[in-house]
Amino acid sequence: MVNITMLGCGGNVPSPSRFCSCSLINYKGKKILIDCGEGTQISMKNLGTGFKGIDLVLITHLHGDHINGLLGLLSSLGNAEKRDPLIIVGPKGIKRAIKAMMILWEGLPYGLNVIENPIGKFSVNMPIYNEIEIDVLELEHSVECLGYSLYFKRNRSFSVKKALFNNVPKSLWKNLQKGQTFYYNNKTYTPDMVLDKERKGIKLTYVTDTRPIKEIETFAKDSSIFICEAMYSDDMDIGKAVKNKHMTFRETCNLANKSNSKKLLLTHFSPSVSKPELFEDFTKSLFKNSIIAYDGITIEIPYED
Amino acid sequence: MVNITMLGCGGNVPSPSRFCSCSLINYKGKKILIDCGEGTQISMKNLGTGFKGIDLVLITHLHGDHINGLLGLLSSLGNAEKRDPLIIVGPKGIKRAIKAMMILWEGLPYGLNVIENPIGKFSVNMPIYNEIEIDVLELEHSVECLGYSLYFKRNRSFSVKKALFNNVPKSLWKNLQKGQTFYYNNKTYTPDMVLDKERKGIKLTYVTDTRPIKEIETFAKDSSIFICEAMYSDDMDIGKAVKNKHMTFRETCNLANKSNSKKLLLTHFSPSVSKPELFEDFTKSLFKNSIIAYDGITIEIPYED
Repeated sequence: MVNITMLGCGGNVPSPSRFCSCSLINYKGKKILIDCGEGTQISMKNLGTGFKGIDLVLITHLHGDHINGLLGLLSSLGNAEKRDPLIIVGPKGIKRAIKAMMILWEGLPYGLNVIENPIGKFSVNMPIYNEIEIDVLELEHSVECLGYSLYFKRNRSFSVKKALFNNVPKSLWKNLQKGQTFYYNNKTYTPDMVLDKERKGIKLTYVTDTRPIKEIETFAKDSSIFICEAMYSDDMDIGKAVKNKHMTFRETCNLANKSNSKKLLLTHFSPSVSKPELFEDFTKSLFKNSIIAYDGITIEIPYED
Repeated sequence: MVNITMLGCGGNVPSPSRFCSCSLINYKGKKILIDCGEGTQISMKNLGTGFKGIDLVLITHLHGDHINGLLGLLSSLGNAEKRDPLIIVGPKGIKRAIKAMMILWEGLPYGLNVIENPIGKFSVNMPIYNEIEIDVLELEHSVECLGYSLYFKRNRSFSVKKALFNNVPKSLWKNLQKGQTFYYNNKTYTPDMVLDKERKGIKLTYVTDTRPIKEIETFAKDSSIFICEAMYSDDMDIGKAVKNKHMTFRETCNLANKSNSKKLLLTHFSPSVSKPELFEDFTKSLFKNSIIAYDGITIEIPYED
């Protein structure tokens, strides 16, 4: 199971009830942050999420409401005794931005590996994180901006029935389950002989800030959860949405429909939208399984089978 | 009258109930910020202080809990239609830090004038701000750190009685009051001939982060209000205070006594001090007119006469 906590759902600038963009994904004791607006570490303390287990930060773009909390967070991770390297992924310019931050804060007690503008799918070569395949899409905003889609792979389960049926010696079971192949007593044993059928993983797609470009539909295809910006609640604000390269609630819901996502979490609300929760009936009428995010909401995303 | 609002009273890292160091001084419609920790602009929104009228920011030192909110604030000042230059004063390294911030946030719609490590007293040459004399003291912290003492000068009041006694023509009254001298009908008229005696201004001294060095006593001498760090409430934490270059509540109160300050506002509490307000009886026993600060407290500082 994966869960995601929205630490900040505010777009543009923080408002009294909404910190700036930041989401915290929990997976098997490891944490991934997507974006890190001002107040991220304050929100983490409010919610008691803890600072341990964060090894990966994905930044969508370099606007202040998405990165201004990073400097404070990097420092607090050090205070929380982080000593393993932190991987930061971001769009073009992220290396320059991190370098600038290091002028402001010298002497981090852990290393930083910055991955700039990765193309296509990649995985992070660390235990647990290597079970996640990360896909990247270039969005359409006023600056370079990346969408992230995380696929949490699921191991095939071990089938005693199948192992017995295939006469696999018990001494090989454990290693076959791990994916190794054996030649033993003149016979080849493969993982397929002890493993059940492939199981569907969890697909979490995170898209902000952008216009609703066609490519997002494929990118978010069949997402278990589609977390997407929804800057303006009112259809009448479409002009602002086009001008500022954002979306209306309706456009966000349309993308959820077209991508066949299972669940939609709307976030990144304009400061002018003071009570986005009042629009939940409206969004549900457009996309049934939609939720209006708020600071502190946690969504559990179970495996589908 | 001057007033000061504490936007953040937390030392080191923000805690759920305390943002990082930041104070907002109001004087005749103008605002001065001292320090700008993460969450400053959030606290300003919570308290509804507004972003207009800030032309001067004084930074004590370059630790994250004192500057990490500056980037977001600079951006929000631009959103609040600031177009006049902002003056930022800070210790050695402030120019480099601001330069780094400008890599992260290009295109501010107003200019920045950065004054690095000023020595002695200075004034800012802008209306209203030029009524304030700012004194600077090098403190004793783990990095270069400045204390600020602001003296809000008070105009002498106009005395009709004195003007009449000195036979000053009415046509000269206004300009004499402004400080001009006139030679008129073979006689010299000076401001002294229409102005009452000198009046005491308001002295606001702000000292954080530091050990209680002797020089602070003179620097804060006769302050109307002495705002001072008080990292540790417990006398037993003196070892930590010495090691981390901070103060205990007792040391802070001692400085208030020795400087003959009228009022003491204790701030910059360690995250380990969860309820500093519980120590107010203790601080009052050491320095009668002491107040334990909290986020959002506003203190009005009237003229003494």
